[in-house]
Amino acid sequence: MKQAHILVTNDDGIYAEGIQRLCQALLESKGGYRLSVIAPERERSAIGHAITMHKPLRVAEVDFLNNPALKGRSVNGTPSDCVKLAVEAILDQKPDLVISGINRGSNLGTDVLYSGTVSAALEGLLLGIPSIAVSLTGNGNSSSFDYAARLISTIVPRLLESSIEASTLVNINVPVDIKEIKGARVTKLGNRRYRNAFEKRTDPRGMHYYWLAGELIEDDPEDDDCDTKAVRDGYISVTPIHFQLTDRNAMPALEKLIKEMEL
Amino acid sequence: MKQAHILVTNDDGIYAEGIQRLCQALLESKGGYRLSVIAPERERSAIGHAITMHKPLRVAEVDFLNNPALKGRSVNGTPSDCVKLAVEAILDQKPDLVISGINRGSNLGTDVLYSGTVSAALEGLLLGIPSIAVSLTGNGNSSSFDYAARLISTIVPRLLESSIEASTLVNINVPVDIKEIKGARVTKLGNRRYRNAFEKRTDPRGMHYYWLAGELIEDDPEDDDCDTKAVRDGYISVTPIHFQLTDRNAMPALEKLIKEMEL
Repeated sequence: MKQAHILVTNDDGIYAEGIQRLCQALLESKGGYRLSVIAPERERSAIGHAITMHKPLRVAEVDFLNNPALKGRSVNGTPSDCVKLAVEAILDQKPDLVISGINRGSNLGTDVLYSGTVSAALEGLLLGIPSIAVSLTGNGNSSSFDYAARLISTIVPRLLESSIEASTLVNINVPVDIKEIKGARVTKLGNRRYRNAFEKRTDPRGMHYYWLAGELIEDDPEDDDCDTKAVRDGYISVTPIHFQLTDRNAMPALEKLIKEMEL
Repeated sequence: MKQAHILVTNDDGIYAEGIQRLCQALLESKGGYRLSVIAPERERSAIGHAITMHKPLRVAEVDFLNNPALKGRSVNGTPSDCVKLAVEAILDQKPDLVISGINRGSNLGTDVLYSGTVSAALEGLLLGIPSIAVSLTGNGNSSSFDYAARLISTIVPRLLESSIEASTLVNINVPVDIKEIKGARVTKLGNRRYRNAFEKRTDPRGMHYYWLAGELIEDDPEDDDCDTKAVRDGYISVTPIHFQLTDRNAMPALEKLIKEMEL
């Protein structure tokens, strides 16, 4: 069997604990993977699917896991930039899998649209590569990161062998309280809404400014197989995500509207 | 009939021609709309669905269309920030519609995932408000912006009356060569791929850097009702977009995989 090539990235930056523990676990597993680690030079959270068009991207080699055989590279861009640049310009061989994480903090429900972690995996998908996004649901300590890292290194060989399409992103959220984990569930994306999303303050010069803040209201649909509910109930949540965004159901009503306008 | 309240934003910045022409056309139309204009203080293209968490957002009042009754506001954030801040903190009343545009340059196919213009409309949708994104397919002159602006002011009253759901974002791309426009088509999102996405250069100090570049390859699915093809053929493209991202078709295969792992 050919050696699988995994591109690892994240949105907490290449020096974050999550990406280091993940790579350590992948190296220690029996997979014998070739790892390429290309990640932002600093934290780039809530960056969504941003790409950098107006400034040049630079790549620096970085010591990674004190392993001279493992070349780490940092990029002065977003998580999506890292994956695009890795696949299109840096790597000699297209990866078989992209893993983005392990993020410190959950990426659940509608919030995945803001997530740098998920966007990096999405960039892999757009380039035709199966992709995984992994998050811990809170500020993990080293044992929760290790738990999630070992979980991923168990899932990876199965995913590589499976019939899961390269059009599906697998979004995994691991409850940070690992002692209470009850198992894993395949879930749908739930809804996340926030109350009082901004806090208005006044600076020392009397000028107003706003902080994004807000109290989370988890607003699950009635069926209980949502990612938000799964992690709340102590389960690892595994959600398949696609990017077929055309709303085919709305096409007839729009056709009617356009026709009436005689455009 | 109650006066409709429209929030107008964009990603080219509040001083861009597109948003000004759009507002002018809406004010001159028979709709009698209340307009709120809240847009980035500068260009924020390719920002995707980024939101600003780590710095305070500031809002400045801006002269807009030399119309003292029309308060324009600029924000030091992304298009998504503008809509979120407008609805959650600035406006006294929830808008009935969000319009994002008119963007200088198309937002078609898979590229909508990178689009600030579309993301602003998506933020409206997430807040439960029907939303429209509008783009010209190139560097428009004033007559092409005026054409697109009048088109939108014709569509708006019909959309407000229609049964199109607030879960659908209407993404409109207007061919910049307005003299050759043949009509309008309701379309699906096509695929856009790029060849040689990065250009590698060397700076005066011998260090390498990369520019995002690349040659567009339009890679439409076989059916010919894609947005990319429609605008190429001289049609206004109208695409309904949703954000139901759960890939339900992939759930059984993932269930099987999780079960075999005995998690």
